[in-house]
Amino acid sequence: MLEIKGIEKKYYFKPVLTGVEMTIQPQRIYGLLGRNGVGKSTLLKVITNRARPTAGTITLDGVSVFENEQAQNRLYLMSDARLFNQDSKLKVLLKWVDQLYGGFDYALAEKLARQFKLDLKKAKLRRLSTGYQTIANVIIALCVPCDYIFLDEPVLGLDANHREMFYQALLATYAQRPRTFVIATHLIEEVAGLLNDVFVMENGQVALAESVEALQQRGRVVSGPAALVQDYLQGIKPLREVRLGGMLTAYTLDTPLERPLPAGVSLDGMNLQQLFIEFTREAGEGDEV
Amino acid sequence: MLEIKGIEKKYYFKPVLTGVEMTIQPQRIYGLLGRNGVGKSTLLKVITNRARPTAGTITLDGVSVFENEQAQNRLYLMSDARLFNQDSKLKVLLKWVDQLYGGFDYALAEKLARQFKLDLKKAKLRRLSTGYQTIANVIIALCVPCDYIFLDEPVLGLDANHREMFYQALLATYAQRPRTFVIATHLIEEVAGLLNDVFVMENGQVALAESVEALQQRGRVVSGPAALVQDYLQGIKPLREVRLGGMLTAYTLDTPLERPLPAGVSLDGMNLQQLFIEFTREAGEGDEV
Repeated sequence: MLEIKGIEKKYYFKPVLTGVEMTIQPQRIYGLLGRNGVGKSTLLKVITNRARPTAGTITLDGVSVFENEQAQNRLYLMSDARLFNQDSKLKVLLKWVDQLYGGFDYALAEKLARQFKLDLKKAKLRRLSTGYQTIANVIIALCVPCDYIFLDEPVLGLDANHREMFYQALLATYAQRPRTFVIATHLIEEVAGLLNDVFVMENGQVALAESVEALQQRGRVVSGPAALVQDYLQGIKPLREVRLGGMLTAYTLDTPLERPLPAGVSLDGMNLQQLFIEFTREAGEGDEV
Repeated sequence: MLEIKGIEKKYYFKPVLTGVEMTIQPQRIYGLLGRNGVGKSTLLKVITNRARPTAGTITLDGVSVFENEQAQNRLYLMSDARLFNQDSKLKVLLKWVDQLYGGFDYALAEKLARQFKLDLKKAKLRRLSTGYQTIANVIIALCVPCDYIFLDEPVLGLDANHREMFYQALLATYAQRPRTFVIATHLIEEVAGLLNDVFVMENGQVALAESVEALQQRGRVVSGPAALVQDYLQGIKPLREVRLGGMLTAYTLDTPLERPLPAGVSLDGMNLQQLFIEFTREAGEGDEV
């Protein structure tokens, strides 16, 4: 179990992370969601020792991960940063990752490379298109033996086919060797089916940590005559209210499903992406043009 | 009406476009779909006079668009290429676009900028994040008076909220001033609801041009005992067949809906993104890991 407590991070006196609290369990698949610029990448870098926090602690199975090579070896970050030497051949890169982490799954890497039509023997990183650089990064991330894999925008620039192949490959390798994935992505609805839980970041903190199932259960669009909707939602502050004439549409994460629904009021579900959008919507955004 | 005939384009003797045929009607919203590297961006550049075709003709209402400023003024391309001077302030940039195309809708630009929280008066392009550079490009594209707007990956790097706001803004401005949009994107399912028609490119050509409605009507997943499925699909070559034991799942764009469905065979729909993935899947891709 990875426990993250009170993590703060400033860049040039500007606070980016302002007290992140997270518990990441073994063998689960998490979504790390948040608006652009909220600090997802910074958090992933801090967890995986690529950036130093200004304050806070991170422990893996009770032991601090800071300056702890053994713990860091169990964590792997895939990001779009071009960390690798662009002149390397992929084959050489895999050996290098194997040296660092041990137990690299070459057989799986070759299988995935065949599927994605990536020639491991020939390809030099510099020669690959942006999409294929991402694919190379993704294949490596699926083949390292680490227990906690952090994926920062793993499908950016991939076409729909390659995105689907990646999701399928992730699930297949997870079934064969369960481990934790934390996936930071803006393509929320596409990954929703993969995720057990989500963390939603706001203002440099984790504002919501919950299972996808529970969220989808609680999140509802309530609409009908304003007075009836307000009555039904009494005591609850919806995420958003949209009025049109005498009708009210309310988006809420706290649907009182135990209350009887008044006649004339409808209750519709929201998918995970819609939930996220309503939860993180800022005042004034999305008003009618 | 924009008519594109026999467009070919080579880069350094490498054929990219190999005979594109398209008819683009006024006041419709098209999706331009295709795998990474298939030539979508090249085609959009050729149509909008940013690249010269090796062969072929393009006419707007019967008149060639080549070396025809009046015709070119009715076409606008938004791409992620950083065409604009990065030191410009946005305010200056809008004036420049207004000079070029005339009739720039400043009032709409200000409304959209407020919604997206983009300060038109202060912002210098260079200072904007990648996401906000895209937003600035998108706002300009929605405010030019052109009849044919081409959007090349308009939501790349935007978070889910900004993507939704963009789709809503596009529809709202379309309702107020119907014109043609051609949207090249990899986020197919998200834009599906916006589109009237799609063009799917393969091997440097348009391999499929059809209304979204017709496609979704014809595209089905047929599954059941192999003999029954094959019998039902007699004479039809499915896009893909997946066998598991004695069962067969076939993905097809040519479902014979007029034939009676044998008992034990099920017929499920595909969404636009699934249809696209099956249509453009290459041999060997997506086989099980």
